[in-house]
Amino acid sequence: MSASTEPVPHEGAFADPIYREAVADLLAAVGYGEISAFERLAEDAKLAPSLEDKLVLAAFASQQIAKVGPIRARLVNLGADPFAAMESFRSGFDAFHAHTAPSDWWEGLVKVYVGDGLANDFYREIAAFLDPGTRDLVLTTLEDTGQAEFVVERVLAGIAADPRLGGRLALWGRRLMGEALTQAQRVVADRDSLAGLLAGGVDMPGFDLAAIGRMFTRLTERHAERMTGLGLEH
Amino acid sequence: MSASTEPVPHEGAFADPIYREAVADLLAAVGYGEISAFERLAEDAKLAPSLEDKLVLAAFASQQIAKVGPIRARLVNLGADPFAAMESFRSGFDAFHAHTAPSDWWEGLVKVYVGDGLANDFYREIAAFLDPGTRDLVLTTLEDTGQAEFVVERVLAGIAADPRLGGRLALWGRRLMGEALTQAQRVVADRDSLAGLLAGGVDMPGFDLAAIGRMFTRLTERHAERMTGLGLEH
Repeated sequence: MSASTEPVPHEGAFADPIYREAVADLLAAVGYGEISAFERLAEDAKLAPSLEDKLVLAAFASQQIAKVGPIRARLVNLGADPFAAMESFRSGFDAFHAHTAPSDWWEGLVKVYVGDGLANDFYREIAAFLDPGTRDLVLTTLEDTGQAEFVVERVLAGIAADPRLGGRLALWGRRLMGEALTQAQRVVADRDSLAGLLAGGVDMPGFDLAAIGRMFTRLTERHAERMTGLGLEH
Repeated sequence: MSASTEPVPHEGAFADPIYREAVADLLAAVGYGEISAFERLAEDAKLAPSLEDKLVLAAFASQQIAKVGPIRARLVNLGADPFAAMESFRSGFDAFHAHTAPSDWWEGLVKVYVGDGLANDFYREIAAFLDPGTRDLVLTTLEDTGQAEFVVERVLAGIAADPRLGGRLALWGRRLMGEALTQAQRVVADRDSLAGLLAGGVDMPGFDLAAIGRMFTRLTERHAERMTGLGLEH
């Protein structure tokens, strides 16, 4: 599927050029997100308090890059220019990262966990409306490779050693959530294709306004659960 | 061999505690070098003129990190603390990188090629004096994963498009060579174990002073060949 070099035929869901474009946009966003995650994790690795922690973050960064290949191949099969498609999401991601540059190791860790968690929840919500091939590719790309477990263990130990850290990181988590929602909403609003995917179409299920509201409630609840998992108030 | 979890027995060459220490030092230097290469390539990726080039450098960075695992395992088998051992080489590598921070994409590319080439030549010279297991691990770790080819292609195209670039990069290559030799010499001089490995021992071949001179001549010649490969004067 993802590693295939066959063009995706214009049939089934893909007979609809709007769906095709929406899938290409979605995959491009996921792909640029992986490249952006690599860059962020490589930056965070610099803040690591030990060489062992640095190596863990560098390995996480590497895992993100490995996930770009299948996305790129699928974009090519969809007839898109994969780099132009991914590039078009750069400003949104860069704006998010510019507004949420971690000031230390701990903020970096919480951002990995909260940011990836939110992005993954969001893409999983959308994946429910996709054809099975695209859905599998998106879900495989989003699979956690041990990052959440590492962050939770480290942050819980950090707060145990310095309880004041908890208050600061709780504020930081709220700020990350606000910035992420702001940027995600902008990205979707700027793209008719993605807004269309969320809204559904003639042959496609989608969200009505009330359903979108419920989706945001779910995203917020899962964020709250993650913060609780870190031992932080939300 | 490298992936084994068996301790390395104190027999053969490894019966000699000085050889054992020298091998641990050498592997730690190679291992820290890979982590350092990851960091440098991740930095260089930021300077990439296109998302495609950025992804290539990020993939190169990832490949370096994948090579640390077997080195780490071997250090553990030798009875060393792998992170303390690697950490002890940090200042030497950091000094080299602080003195050779590339100011743009081109300088970054040339540094990847010239720096890795030199380091690889140097470790290969030393590998000739190692037991087969260590030698295989070192040579596998140093295998080029396509970086040289990528750099040569990009730099030749860059110089073709802007011939003035060649003069600047030729100067840069000479500076890299000078800094690398200065730091490598310091690292070896600071380590009796590595100096001993080069000098040989009772049951071990090694370099006499004239042989060390010839080794540096070979390193310099290969550097000159690489610069010629880039279309640069040396």
